[in-house]
Amino acid sequence: MEVVTFGETMVQLAADRMAPLEYVDGFHKHVAGAESNVAIGLARMGHRAGWFSKLGNDPFGRYVRQFITGHGVDTSEVRTTDEAPTGVFFKEQISPDRIQVYYYRRQSAASLMNERELNEAYVAKARILHVTGITPALSPECRKLTFRAMETAKKHGTAIVFDPNIRWKLWNREEAGEVLGAMAGLADYVLPGVEEGRFLTGGHTPEEIAERLLEGGAGAVVIKLGGAGAYYRSGESSGYEPGFPVRRLIDPMGAGDGFAAGFISGLLLGEKLPAAVRRANAVGSIVVGVSGDVEGLPTRHEVERLLAGGAASEDITR
Amino acid sequence: MEVVTFGETMVQLAADRMAPLEYVDGFHKHVAGAESNVAIGLARMGHRAGWFSKLGNDPFGRYVRQFITGHGVDTSEVRTTDEAPTGVFFKEQISPDRIQVYYYRRQSAASLMNERELNEAYVAKARILHVTGITPALSPECRKLTFRAMETAKKHGTAIVFDPNIRWKLWNREEAGEVLGAMAGLADYVLPGVEEGRFLTGGHTPEEIAERLLEGGAGAVVIKLGGAGAYYRSGESSGYEPGFPVRRLIDPMGAGDGFAAGFISGLLLGEKLPAAVRRANAVGSIVVGVSGDVEGLPTRHEVERLLAGGAASEDITR
Amino acid sequence: MEVVTFGETMVQLAADRMAPLEYVDGFHKHVAGAESNVAIGLARMGHRAGWFSKLGNDPFGRYVRQFITGHGVDTSEVRTTDEAPTGVFFKEQISPDRIQVYYYRRQSAASLMNERELNEAYVAKARILHVTGITPALSPECRKLTFRAMETAKKHGTAIVFDPNIRWKLWNREEAGEVLGAMAGLADYVLPGVEEGRFLTGGHTPEEIAERLLEGGAGAVVIKLGGAGAYYRSGESSGYEPGFPVRRLIDPMGAGDGFAAGFISGLLLGEKLPAAVRRANAVGSIVVGVSGDVEGLPTRHEVERLLAGGAASEDITR
Amino acid sequence: MEVVTFGETMVQLAADRMAPLEYVDGFHKHVAGAESNVAIGLARMGHRAGWFSKLGNDPFGRYVRQFITGHGVDTSEVRTTDEAPTGVFFKEQISPDRIQVYYYRRQSAASLMNERELNEAYVAKARILHVTGITPALSPECRKLTFRAMETAKKHGTAIVFDPNIRWKLWNREEAGEVLGAMAGLADYVLPGVEEGRFLTGGHTPEEIAERLLEGGAGAVVIKLGGAGAYYRSGESSGYEPGFPVRRLIDPMGAGDGFAAGFISGLLLGEKLPAAVRRANAVGSIVVGVSGDVEGLPTRHEVERLLAGGAASEDITR
Amino acid sequence: MEVVTFGETMVQLAADRMAPLEYVDGFHKHVAGAESNVAIGLARMGHRAGWFSKLGNDPFGRYVRQFITGHGVDTSEVRTTDEAPTGVFFKEQISPDRIQVYYYRRQSAASLMNERELNEAYVAKARILHVTGITPALSPECRKLTFRAMETAKKHGTAIVFDPNIRWKLWNREEAGEVLGAMAGLADYVLPGVEEGRFLTGGHTPEEIAERLLEGGAGAVVIKLGGAGAYYRSGESSGYEPGFPVRRLIDPMGAGDGFAAGFISGLLLGEKLPAAVRRANAVGSIVVGVSGDVEGLPTRHEVERLLAGGAASEDITR
Amino acid sequence: MEVVTFGETMVQLAADRMAPLEYVDGFHKHVAGAESNVAIGLARMGHRAGWFSKLGNDPFGRYVRQFITGHGVDTSEVRTTDEAPTGVFFKEQISPDRIQVYYYRRQSAASLMNERELNEAYVAKARILHVTGITPALSPECRKLTFRAMETAKKHGTAIVFDPNIRWKLWNREEAGEVLGAMAGLADYVLPGVEEGRFLTGGHTPEEIAERLLEGGAGAVVIKLGGAGAYYRSGESSGYEPGFPVRRLIDPMGAGDGFAAGFISGLLLGEKLPAAVRRANAVGSIVVGVSGDVEGLPTRHEVERLLAGGAASEDITR
Repeated sequence: MEVVTFGETMVQLAADRMAPLEYVDGFHKHVAGAESNVAIGLARMGHRAGWFSKLGNDPFGRYVRQFITGHGVDTSEVRTTDEAPTGVFFKEQISPDRIQVYYYRRQSAASLMNERELNEAYVAKARILHVTGITPALSPECRKLTFRAMETAKKHGTAIVFDPNIRWKLWNREEAGEVLGAMAGLADYVLPGVEEGRFLTGGHTPEEIAERLLEGGAGAVVIKLGGAGAYYRSGESSGYEPGFPVRRLIDPMGAGDGFAAGFISGLLLGEKLPAAVRRANAVGSIVVGVSGDVEGLPTRHEVERLLAGGAASEDITR
Repeated sequence: MEVVTFGETMVQLAADRMAPLEYVDGFHKHVAGAESNVAIGLARMGHRAGWFSKLGNDPFGRYVRQFITGHGVDTSEVRTTDEAPTGVFFKEQISPDRIQVYYYRRQSAASLMNERELNEAYVAKARILHVTGITPALSPECRKLTFRAMETAKKHGTAIVFDPNIRWKLWNREEAGEVLGAMAGLADYVLPGVEEGRFLTGGHTPEEIAERLLEGGAGAVVIKLGGAGAYYRSGESSGYEPGFPVRRLIDPMGAGDGFAAGFISGLLLGEKLPAAVRRANAVGSIVVGVSGDVEGLPTRHEVERLLAGGAASEDITR
Repeated sequence: MEVVTFGETMVQLAADRMAPLEYVDGFHKHVAGAESNVAIGLARMGHRAGWFSKLGNDPFGRYVRQFITGHGVDTSEVRTTDEAPTGVFFKEQISPDRIQVYYYRRQSAASLMNERELNEAYVAKARILHVTGITPALSPECRKLTFRAMETAKKHGTAIVFDPNIRWKLWNREEAGEVLGAMAGLADYVLPGVEEGRFLTGGHTPEEIAERLLEGGAGAVVIKLGGAGAYYRSGESSGYEPGFPVRRLIDPMGAGDGFAAGFISGLLLGEKLPAAVRRANAVGSIVVGVSGDVEGLPTRHEVERLLAGGAASEDITR
Repeated sequence: MEVVTFGETMVQLAADRMAPLEYVDGFHKHVAGAESNVAIGLARMGHRAGWFSKLGNDPFGRYVRQFITGHGVDTSEVRTTDEAPTGVFFKEQISPDRIQVYYYRRQSAASLMNERELNEAYVAKARILHVTGITPALSPECRKLTFRAMETAKKHGTAIVFDPNIRWKLWNREEAGEVLGAMAGLADYVLPGVEEGRFLTGGHTPEEIAERLLEGGAGAVVIKLGGAGAYYRSGESSGYEPGFPVRRLIDPMGAGDGFAAGFISGLLLGEKLPAAVRRANAVGSIVVGVSGDVEGLPTRHEVERLLAGGAASEDITR
Repeated sequence: MEVVTFGETMVQLAADRMAPLEYVDGFHKHVAGAESNVAIGLARMGHRAGWFSKLGNDPFGRYVRQFITGHGVDTSEVRTTDEAPTGVFFKEQISPDRIQVYYYRRQSAASLMNERELNEAYVAKARILHVTGITPALSPECRKLTFRAMETAKKHGTAIVFDPNIRWKLWNREEAGEVLGAMAGLADYVLPGVEEGRFLTGGHTPEEIAERLLEGGAGAVVIKLGGAGAYYRSGESSGYEPGFPVRRLIDPMGAGDGFAAGFISGLLLGEKLPAAVRRANAVGSIVVGVSGDVEGLPTRHEVERLLAGGAASEDITR
Repeated sequence: MEVVTFGETMVQLAADRMAPLEYVDGFHKHVAGAESNVAIGLARMGHRAGWFSKLGNDPFGRYVRQFITGHGVDTSEVRTTDEAPTGVFFKEQISPDRIQVYYYRRQSAASLMNERELNEAYVAKARILHVTGITPALSPECRKLTFRAMETAKKHGTAIVFDPNIRWKLWNREEAGEVLGAMAGLADYVLPGVEEGRFLTGGHTPEEIAERLLEGGAGAVVIKLGGAGAYYRSGESSGYEPGFPVRRLIDPMGAGDGFAAGFISGLLLGEKLPAAVRRANAVGSIVVGVSGDVEGLPTRHEVERLLAGGAASEDITR
């Protein structure tokens, strides 16, 4: 694998209509997981990506595995357990921008992942390890696994890309601050949103946030600024990379995962920081034009077309 | 009960897609009734509210009763008949703001309500009686019942809140003017929209309308001005209460019923006219941010949060 | 037209799932009307058939007209009114053989049909007039129209086929007995089910029923015996015509209308009573193998194939 | 209340089509709980029934409460918690008789019920307490609550009806045997299925099972024999009560709950054991003719009609 | 017939949700065809319109015929074949303005239309023949048929209205340019969009385009400018006719067909070019306010109301 | 790969309800292909299976590939083309046993498969090559490819399993007889149904059919007898293997593919003919108890359980 990532992927039950959930009769199932989104994004852009996790030995676990495998991601390291079910959550949407999730992931199969089952060679052979701040929040065992995986990467020269992805429903501020801070210090690349950066560092501007994360040990920092693009900083360079115009914003979900996938793709292609950030912006801008977490992830061809100044997609064609 | 209201609640068959009804294949059923909306709104805000009507002894009648009872409204005075079916209507939506209804309510069960079956004690013991201008338009018997209920309230010191709610599909202008004018003259509080006020009084400005309604016998007048809020006037005070900003308008239906529920809630909480109007504005502004007649009716907690300057709801939460 | 028929066709709202209606959320609309079923059946078998009625000037009226016209039936004599809506009914299905309907047809557009608007030439020029016992139950005006149409037919040599089609939800036994008895006495062909025959005549066996109807003035009698076929009797001949085996009964609704269409088709083709009854049996047996009132109505080719001893349809084909 | 019951009621997500769950895209939500089914059954037959539980402070908790309240059951003793979510489960149906459930109820809101929050007066004032063997399997606290409720009933002369309702997914055989055996010994009436009876007593025939349960302290025993009816035995009488013929079996789910509701209804009406068992059989036979847990629960009128030798329902009516 | 048109009408399978088609599970069928849209539009406005084509002898062919016949269009000249199926296509919608179609129309039934089967009298008796540039792109035989029909019209004084309707998925630029140019030269009225006009003539402004088309033989030219209206030019007159304001754009599909129908209606009503163009604009502006190709086509009454300065439709009505 | 297979896999659009297709509004997409069914069945039973084909460069092609890859089948040899679309077909179901398909596969992407693109090493390295009689019917090029693949297998000692799978909609009897006869003569194992065997050999009994196929060159013959099991014959042994009882037949589609997968699984496990046939029967009997082509394909564990005398699945579990 060129890239390896791991984490919990759940079955999302999305409400059939925009209304408080008690008034919704029907739900449709989807696959949702930040890390598998990134892996799928990388596979679609032509990279060899592996994702591992623990799934319940149940229909939903089979569904998640089929979906991710079907998108060309290596799932040979995914484990199955009879001890706990695959996590699920319900997604309520009151209006396009009022979304709430109701988790049924406490003691899920993924929360039983642990460092003893880590295949270190799988991580060691990868060029890049992608980790998020969700996994260490799942359980103490998952936290240990996360650090063990990062240490393995460090030891074998696998670059670490860390996306904080803070989930306030999973832990309190103190714990989150401590753990995510330590992760940032181990990472070669840290990809926070600006609010996340403020939380992690106490800094306010992108410059301050980046400065403090670098001081804390991070190799490079890329701060996501939504439609405005991103600010990047490393020992070598720093600057703002503007975002690509979004013709019509359809669904903001998955933008961050698309950004991460685009950034990692750039790294794998040997791009320097500014170019990789520009690629990340491109992928992010394409993703938000399509409904769904992975539906809008582009092919390499589409990304290159946008980077080359063309339109990422076409209008009515018949 | 703190509040009692009565009227026709129908089964609404809403089109599954936005198109002229002849091209729509599927419909979903809902419960729709101005007065029961108000009762549900009050129950959700923690008040004891009763609603009565006459339903068909049929599945749709059972559905309406289950729905309203399930929301904590007292339905012990609802009657059932074998003589006529529960009213239904079809809702066509061509575009978000082009809506048309097709009634099947002529000679419905509710139109058979009559003054002989009125439980006067039920009205007499309530602090507030809520009436709308829909009920007297259903049948001559319903008209008599409406006035009898209002007289009962008058006699026992139950305050009357009157919402004209003019339905032009149900009667002609002459009849409507006469009956609704008489009702306004009997009411302690009259809550017209500005167009309704013009029809009822011939006045043009909110001030003129209020003036004339007071002259006609109304105790106080609150004129709804949509997003702009409301104008109120009584012997004691008068003024404009601005509306709360609506982040995203999703569905204007039910705003008036939410307004009435908020206003009555204020009265029950002992608020003066301006405060009750402000509360009415708050509820109205929350309701229009959610699809459906009752789905958006807030809890007391949500209203208080908005009145206290907070946001009524949160954005994406996970 | 070779055949003319008339009556009320309604929009049927069929429940999306088998459950008491109060628990059903979704409904799908269909077109349902005994007389228009017969007209569609005849058109599909290649005959020129006309159907007239009165529809509301509303989307459901337009839908009914489009559907029937689209099946090749002449609807040039259909009238439209602003006075009343197109009738609708809800269909509840608890289990495959527990079906209940809830009508919203009182004072419907069709009930406003009247003899003044009858185009007598339309009836006079037809070879056959098909009437059912539903129409005279809709309103006194409809009753007059029914008899006027029958008299017109009589006067001009148009043969009358009368299908009692008793709907107990529409009238009481006394009235029904009187009116339907009179209609039977005017008809050239009477097509009752055996229960209907017993009600109309007091006879018990098919022979008795037929005997008494002939005595009452009917020209010929065909008594439907369900899967067993039919018994026929006229001045010339009498006997039993066995039914065709039904491979798999899917939906009994519409069998009677299919029978009537098949019978009339036989008459138009110049067949004698036994042959026409056999054709009626064939059509009826095909119809019950398909879900829906008109969906299973066969083409001439399919009927002929079954009459010739072949299968009416094929199994899995790929 | 005449009857009080308590236990966990969950939101059931039923698959939209018969297939392994990984291949199912859509789900519809329902309310499912053995004890609330019984309460709803009793309310529909005209009894005053109360149900209590603990629900999450979430949309699904609100939905469950609205549904049960809407059916006329007293829910004034239901509690709400922020500590845990309302339980849910997914229902897979491979074929009509291959059904599997996937629970997400571990550490659910209901599992947090405890004896400290028991309103003893609520139980004490009831004539009958209904308990099932599901509740003690939810958590140690729930087990204590169950026994506390039974002791309270014993102390105040409230008769106890115990339905074992064994759920093998919730506990092991040893624990189940011990706890359910103890419950049976405290109960005035024990209502096992025959397999449950064998597990609880080691007996094989209904007679043996009943004998041993009586020896263990039960006041009376009624053993459900499916379509064949039931065997009952007390100190006073014993015998077989044959089942009512089921015209068409649609859904076996909920039959046991209907049986319990019918039995309790008989007790409340003052019937002797054989008559109450016969009533229980009647309700059970009606329930299985309708899809859904509560959809088929009959009114008093329907039960009486069946008991009197009539049909519980009618065929096609129009 | 007053107007005759012909061409391929397909079954459109529209995706149930906005997403890339590989992620869409459900589809709904519709009828889609530029020429039949025009015919339906004309029939709705009260004109006698005929449409002919060739359909597969399959369910989709029957569906298309029923739909078009049901809208009052004469389909007596439609042929059926066993040689090829009715064409279908899938419609993908990523966002409101990103639409893609996937055709399965190669060697479809309609592509087998040919000049030998042309009923010349049908064309000769019509006042207007409507042709589009789609038909000649279907097959060489269809191309011959198109020219034969136009020549027939020319010979008998039937005016030709030609709408280029270029479909780039069906042919290459060279072929298209040659054929469509020849068609324009034969037409009495040419109705291109501005981009089409540029392609056909190389001109840039509406004036240039019109000039060149007139030079090429066209009798008159009307260039559609979207919301801005249209530019017209003939030997007699020229000018801009502004568009009608569109309150809310719902669906741009079908606007061009509505424009053509409105224009032809004007011609049939004896209007001069400017008035007919104004009518065309009116119809186009109404069509885009409703979802679907034919759903929004107005009645004569609606068009006249808009032309007279009124609103084409009403808001919420109840 | 242990097994390699190839052929056309299409997108199936299944009607949402049982009715003639012209009356069906909605369709759901599925993946359908005899050869990919077999590959998925083998992968689910733990074998390494590869499938190759040619797909359109379109959403449906991506969907097919995702689905098959997601089930663990190797798709590395699947090709993509811009020249033609992925084939689709519509599935009409009038009643459970009246099914008709409407193909849109003429000149589909798969029909463009050809021998030049065959990766011979892929076939050569496999232990078993599975071929069906569908592929040679797709196009002359596909026919050549089929024989080329079989010859490659022969040359490298890859055993050939041939399932005739005759599709009468794709070719005439003469051509089919010639080609399929030649294929049978090249195969190590021929798996016809009894009707297919009669067509191929003119023999009537299983014994006659097998005899003649062996004479024609086949290595061994297994004749499928539906629920009755199968008859097998080779140079070494012959006999009847009875089928496993099917508790409830849900869907006969896919039984033959399941049989082939089970048979090949047996061969790969080193089983003798009778044991492999028994395994084939087991898989077939499981498949027909579940709706869908691949949904019912069992795991190795389920097959072994059934072969060991247990039940393949469980009843209601909760």
